[in-house]
Amino acid sequence: MAKGTRTRSRILIAAVETACTNGFNGLNLQPLADRVGLTKSGLYAHFRSKEALQLAALEHAAGLFQLSVVAPAKTAPAGLPRLRGVFERWLEWPVGAGLPGHCPLFAAAVEFDVEEGPVRERLMRLFRDFREVLEQLVASSVRHGHLAPGTVPRQLVHELVALRYAHHWGLDFMREAATAERTRAAFTALIGRGHSIG
Amino acid sequence: MAKGTRTRSRILIAAVETACTNGFNGLNLQPLADRVGLTKSGLYAHFRSKEALQLAALEHAAGLFQLSVVAPAKTAPAGLPRLRGVFERWLEWPVGAGLPGHCPLFAAAVEFDVEEGPVRERLMRLFRDFREVLEQLVASSVRHGHLAPGTVPRQLVHELVALRYAHHWGLDFMREAATAERTRAAFTALIGRGHSIG
Repeated sequence: MAKGTRTRSRILIAAVETACTNGFNGLNLQPLADRVGLTKSGLYAHFRSKEALQLAALEHAAGLFQLSVVAPAKTAPAGLPRLRGVFERWLEWPVGAGLPGHCPLFAAAVEFDVEEGPVRERLMRLFRDFREVLEQLVASSVRHGHLAPGTVPRQLVHELVALRYAHHWGLDFMREAATAERTRAAFTALIGRGHSIG
Repeated sequence: MAKGTRTRSRILIAAVETACTNGFNGLNLQPLADRVGLTKSGLYAHFRSKEALQLAALEHAAGLFQLSVVAPAKTAPAGLPRLRGVFERWLEWPVGAGLPGHCPLFAAAVEFDVEEGPVRERLMRLFRDFREVLEQLVASSVRHGHLAPGTVPRQLVHELVALRYAHHWGLDFMREAATAERTRAAFTALIGRGHSIG
């Protein structure tokens, strides 16, 4: 890798780590420059604005999410085992990807619910894409006879998003270790509700 | 009301409104002073630090939550109707309390999951208290035969928190009107799951 590419990569890793604890709005150029040992103008050579940095950090986080959550699921058998694999990795992904603090994407959804602009637009597209992945996994589970024919993917996925949020709240905010058990019990009940599992 | 009390009250209303869009960490003294037409030292006479202001705004938001969500439920019959009443008001409460933007308490849970200090401590106690209210409503619903005897209040309440979070995400971040219908369908399924409703 050329030195410029390595530096850019170091900046992005530090930016995603910062977003995990301080949010994307906490990505200020000077503290980040200090953290990676650059001058502010050195950082500025890579990212010309806070927004450009936020967008690049979001892209980097999305790449880590894809690598940690979506890609590995392909090794599991199609249908419910694959859906379960994605859900399990989704629960653990910040730790699995070596990140500190909470899921930066969920936190960003709170930061950018009112604030308009390209960061919000990109984030919404990421969530839509991941929801599409989940919906396809639900539909595939139905086709494999692992979920009842009447299952509505959009509805079930809304409830999976719900469980992931409560997991975040229970584990990261309330700091209760029993959260993991509650989330998994809820997942099992949700998947089993009125469904025949093949 | 004495003038000082009125001014304090005006500051707190503006502070909670600000927290609804910018978070509690977005409560900076100068912009807030500008908003309520005070000098920074005029504001300082009421709140000696950003943290003091954050704590008072949190208390004010908690009071609004109590008034909008918990108190009115007492008019509904005990058991499931009362639980449903609290859940419904909880879904709508920022609008019901005349607040702009998202639920400031949920947003604060994301802001303060890593950050230590009295704001986080107070917020955690508020969540614990409200969870206790919900658990008592679930237990009462069981006693009234509205929910199955084996219902575990802590587990069911974890899933209610989940639904409220997904509602926040779907409505405030994704801005999908169909969210309300999905959340209510999930509530109905959750309450009906393996339970006999009297």
